[in-house]
Amino acid sequence: MTIEKESERIAEELAKISKQTNDGKLYKKDEIIYHPGDEDDSLYYIKEGRVKLAYLDESGRKLTLAIVGEGEIFGEMVLVGQHRRELLAQAIQDARIYEIEKGRFLELIQREPWLALKILELFGQRTREIERKLEDLVFKDIPTRLSRQLLKLIEEHGRRTPEGIQIDFKITHKELADMIGSARENTTSALNLLEREGILDKRRYRIVIKDEERLREKSRAF
Amino acid sequence: MTIEKESERIAEELAKISKQTNDGKLYKKDEIIYHPGDEDDSLYYIKEGRVKLAYLDESGRKLTLAIVGEGEIFGEMVLVGQHRRELLAQAIQDARIYEIEKGRFLELIQREPWLALKILELFGQRTREIERKLEDLVFKDIPTRLSRQLLKLIEEHGRRTPEGIQIDFKITHKELADMIGSARENTTSALNLLEREGILDKRRYRIVIKDEERLREKSRAF
Repeated sequence: MTIEKESERIAEELAKISKQTNDGKLYKKDEIIYHPGDEDDSLYYIKEGRVKLAYLDESGRKLTLAIVGEGEIFGEMVLVGQHRRELLAQAIQDARIYEIEKGRFLELIQREPWLALKILELFGQRTREIERKLEDLVFKDIPTRLSRQLLKLIEEHGRRTPEGIQIDFKITHKELADMIGSARENTTSALNLLEREGILDKRRYRIVIKDEERLREKSRAF
Repeated sequence: MTIEKESERIAEELAKISKQTNDGKLYKKDEIIYHPGDEDDSLYYIKEGRVKLAYLDESGRKLTLAIVGEGEIFGEMVLVGQHRRELLAQAIQDARIYEIEKGRFLELIQREPWLALKILELFGQRTREIERKLEDLVFKDIPTRLSRQLLKLIEEHGRRTPEGIQIDFKITHKELADMIGSARENTTSALNLLEREGILDKRRYRIVIKDEERLREKSRAF
């Protein structure tokens, strides 16, 4: 089975047990899917669009843990027996999402063990990503973290344009800062530096990477 | 099925497909199970003992991501198609470990979907733990991070003694520093402070928490 066929089959199986029919539920850009503290026993599957998963601390500071897109599952912590959300899930683009009740999901997995394997892979990938973020935070400075984050964004959400590779959604400096665990001011300085060096172009919340090779060099520094 | 029965059954099923017979392979304290960069297509199940999973950066600095113990699985990243180890796995006590070849593990999961669910839970828990570590690193200062780490250690590896709850393995200040992503010197200062306040006792690599309640208060600070 090709990867594409596999994703289709996953989408099909999940659609069948979703609370919504057919195309899932539509969330508009910036709409919140759940807040930290919400009680909720569902997992979510993204049919279309992108969702930000973030941690908010007591004083309202934010740390973005992941941007998940089409074909990905989130809210999977209900499988671990968590009944209250610890994270914020927010659409960063219009998104179509299936909501799947935990019990039905578990039944499906018992019936279709191949699906359990796909989910395991997905969890493994996400764990590894968060581990990398943690390593970066301990060992890398802000310009290096920013370069690594930008590379990741164009790999996962990049679109080729005549000017270079554009991150395929609007993003503010504050949002980038939340992704690399730094202050907004320092992130802006590091972005300005990359712009002055001709590595990227930024305007109106759009970031275009003009020189991927040099960005990659920056990402390997300490 | 009770949790204990479940763990026993997992151990039984994994023993059957392990490369070793009966009691697994013995690793002596400090022995390395794998190094970053090693090629290896196995998962590991801990029958007895404890193992440290750590990231080493290019210059040899270390970040300890987890201490895993009896009944836990590690090396699961082979499920995600990783052929080279990114982490270091090292026994911190004498340990008995089953090594399980990836292919045989996948076959088992297809045959026993309940096992897939257990593994999913395990992954979910580990992900959540690493997310928490990340949040701590961004939002908490060193004394708070140290208090939270000590609480986690006595919850998972604590043993009641007449003096208080003792962390059930030897641990150096450097090792604690590697767990909270701080320098050794700062970790020692924070430990000394907790000792002066009568919250813990430390001598010869042994740490005893004498006042859990006050440690918990410390862990809630910023």
